Amino acid sequence: LHEIQEHNRKADNYWVYRGNRVYDITDWIPNHPGGDVIMRAVGGSIEPYWNIFTIHQKQDVYDILEQYFIGLIDPRDLVDGRAPAGQVEDPFKLDPTRDPELIVHSDRPFNAETPTADLETFITPIARFYKRHHLWVPKLDEKTFKLTVELPNGEEVEYSVEDLRSKFKAHTITATMQCSGNRRSHMTKGSRPTNGIQWGVGAISNAEWTGVKMLDVLQDAGLDVTDLPDDVKHVQFMGAEAYGASVPIEKIADQFGDALIVYAMNGQTLPRDHGFPLRALIPGTVAARSVKWLSKIVLSEDESTSQWQQRDYKCFGPNEGSTPDWSSAVAIQETPVQSAITSIRKVTANRLESSALARVYGLEEESVVLRGYAFSGAGRRVVRVDVSPDNGKTWQQANIEDAEQKGHRSWSWRQWNLAIPTRMLSGNVCVKATDDGYNTQPENFTAYYNFRGNLANSWHRVPV
Amino acid sequence: LHEIQEHNRKADNYWVYRGNRVYDITDWIPNHPGGDVIMRAVGGSIEPYWNIFTIHQKQDVYDILEQYFIGLIDPRDLVDGRAPAGQVEDPFKLDPTRDPELIVHSDRPFNAETPTADLETFITPIARFYKRHHLWVPKLDEKTFKLTVELPNGEEVEYSVEDLRSKFKAHTITATMQCSGNRRSHMTKGSRPTNGIQWGVGAISNAEWTGVKMLDVLQDAGLDVTDLPDDVKHVQFMGAEAYGASVPIEKIADQFGDALIVYAMNGQTLPRDHGFPLRALIPGTVAARSVKWLSKIVLSEDESTSQWQQRDYKCFGPNEGSTPDWSSAVAIQETPVQSAITSIRKVTANRLESSALARVYGLEEESVVLRGYAFSGAGRRVVRVDVSPDNGKTWQQANIEDAEQKGHRSWSWRQWNLAIPTRMLSGNVCVKATDDGYNTQPENFTAYYNFRGNLANSWHRVPV
Repeated sequence: LHEIQEHNRKADNYWVYRGNRVYDITDWIPNHPGGDVIMRAVGGSIEPYWNIFTIHQKQDVYDILEQYFIGLIDPRDLVDGRAPAGQVEDPFKLDPTRDPELIVHSDRPFNAETPTADLETFITPIARFYKRHHLWVPKLDEKTFKLTVELPNGEEVEYSVEDLRSKFKAHTITATMQCSGNRRSHMTKGSRPTNGIQWGVGAISNAEWTGVKMLDVLQDAGLDVTDLPDDVKHVQFMGAEAYGASVPIEKIADQFGDALIVYAMNGQTLPRDHGFPLRALIPGTVAARSVKWLSKIVLSEDESTSQWQQRDYKCFGPNEGSTPDWSSAVAIQETPVQSAITSIRKVTANRLESSALARVYGLEEESVVLRGYAFSGAGRRVVRVDVSPDNGKTWQQANIEDAEQKGHRSWSWRQWNLAIPTRMLSGNVCVKATDDGYNTQPENFTAYYNFRGNLANSWHRVPV
Repeated sequence: LHEIQEHNRKADNYWVYRGNRVYDITDWIPNHPGGDVIMRAVGGSIEPYWNIFTIHQKQDVYDILEQYFIGLIDPRDLVDGRAPAGQVEDPFKLDPTRDPELIVHSDRPFNAETPTADLETFITPIARFYKRHHLWVPKLDEKTFKLTVELPNGEEVEYSVEDLRSKFKAHTITATMQCSGNRRSHMTKGSRPTNGIQWGVGAISNAEWTGVKMLDVLQDAGLDVTDLPDDVKHVQFMGAEAYGASVPIEKIADQFGDALIVYAMNGQTLPRDHGFPLRALIPGTVAARSVKWLSKIVLSEDESTSQWQQRDYKCFGPNEGSTPDWSSAVAIQETPVQSAITSIRKVTANRLESSALARVYGLEEESVVLRGYAFSGAGRRVVRVDVSPDNGKTWQQANIEDAEQKGHRSWSWRQWNLAIPTRMLSGNVCVKATDDGYNTQPENFTAYYNFRGNLANSWHRVPV
């Protein structure tokens, strides 16, 4: 055990143990999908970490570890025949407290969706903005925090938060964040089981974001965006906790792309749960690329090597099983058109005359008022929302609400509403949206199923 | 009649007649959806033109004309009680001759699709490239032809073809052109009748285009694309024959957008049928915006006022009839993901062993080989083609062929192929593609029907 402890993060070789078996994982570390976070475990037992990061508790991970077996713990070090589990500092213990109205799917890491009522306003209140964490929430000091930009020649340029605020022009845009797993539970129900958090309609929110243009910072650091070097194809982002992802350079270099380094949300200092003190904001792109607690930007010929770039956030064919050739699919970037029904409220006959809704819609009979949102990626504007009261037999166009969208493209969702006489309802009400590229949503889930349950954007059907 | 003849294009007021009724259409001319082509008719009978442009032969056009009624032809000028029809120079008589293998849908204007076999090669031969004309093919002289760029202040800058060739760097890209009506006949068959040419799978082709960057020319003419003026939102294109359309300025200002002013196609001088001597090429955008015989570019706050921008090339909801509020829908620009099956060939058992296909696919039983294309707009790359041998019950991934695509984004279609054992075939074979924005094709046509039959991109199903 003493020998293992010496092979800690200060050593040249890194050892861990599991049960009474010892492993030299030095060669594995560069390949670890979760990045450098693995260094927390070297010199001791891996088990308490795997109890926190339970994603590791499966046979293929055990098999990888076994490749690095180097020996057994001396039996004299065992207590009651077992190796000590060791002490682990719980990285989640400093996580912030959250609004009790959030719909929680997992506590550690914290994943929770926005309550339905808050999906019906254009700007989501910060407390009700959905939270999607892969790891813990790091506690960072704005005064000492540095963002590093690494150029292709290896040179690094550092910016403090104050540098960013004082050297660059501030920009404010409105943009919707959506998890690639939004509505995953609908895909599961509509076809077959999927891997991942079973989100409802609330893994999506919209905010006003303030920061500096990433383009301005990269140019300041030394990148010529008007004549991009051949070895700059991707922009990699690293979060202070260990998360990583990347986007193609075209998205950042686009003068209408509005990619920001953000320090404020809805007019307030960026909250810890959303990346304090700095986060990337890549509007029109799946939220997984808008890396929080942004500590490093790397200009690279390659995509991020993280599992969140190389694996999890991809889609496969409906026939492809849970062990696909991950390299055969592209990483999700822009997201397809999406819509959801967030509420169906009756306007009962005896209240109809006095109802404000009746005045708005000119209703003359018992009706329901449907509300929801619609959104498309890549800055495509939602231009039409079709609602069916009878499971797709007939359609009507919903009223799409106008709101002031800040930014060069249409980065924000649009709320919609429609009143339908109750007598017309039959089976499911359905919604599908069309964006300004005339992209549409699939009718069913079966032929669009992917085992990861990503980008579940088939019609949203709600029984009535 | 003599008085009418004096109100010709050299006069201040423009008269036409129809039957024995005379109209002063001066105030109508700025509103004519077809633009200045109407000037050909002033000072005489409108009827021979309407016999050529038969789109006018309907009651709402007659009603518009009637608003401008000013009197009757003197009965003494009538012959056998009728006004003379007048002489009309047939604008189509100088149209080029075309390849007899093209599948012709209309002769005047000429509209013809690419034969199936030519959809299976990456570059379409010029003669077999689909032709889609709204009017006649103008006969232009490269030596005297001028392209005019109109700036927001009204200033005009002229370029000869030689100016463009000598002043600006040449660029070559590969790009697919697709008519918004491609596969319209499938929508008609799959749901209800649609208005327009009933194209099959061949209103799409791919070529290598050479010309100069539109961005470079506009900058040379005086536009600062790095700091666009507020009154430049659209770039309008006018063809020498009368056609007009526009695209948003962002598409042209995008350094990765590859919009060209083209003078060569597949390494040859641009043919008359494809816009000689100059055409716009707006890759990733519906072909209707790549204006042929490009004679004028106008930087404007507004879209083109032509009917091809304001009306025909739009989609409406499945419930919306043939008299929609045209202003309620956006003009088609980028097009959604599309795919088609172009051939199904049997590999019969007695020929199987010696068959080259059998060697390629390793076939051990009677099979069919399916071929086709897949394409998406906005430079999105097709990343997966799913083929179902049994009308959507099960799926397999096709082999997608690689080809050298020139340009910053994926502007070209991709050919695909797949061999399927004959015993697996049941009902229809279907194809659907996925692009790198993970956009997909709808399963059926019914809920995606639009009365104009535009953007018919539901699964292509072929009975077997």
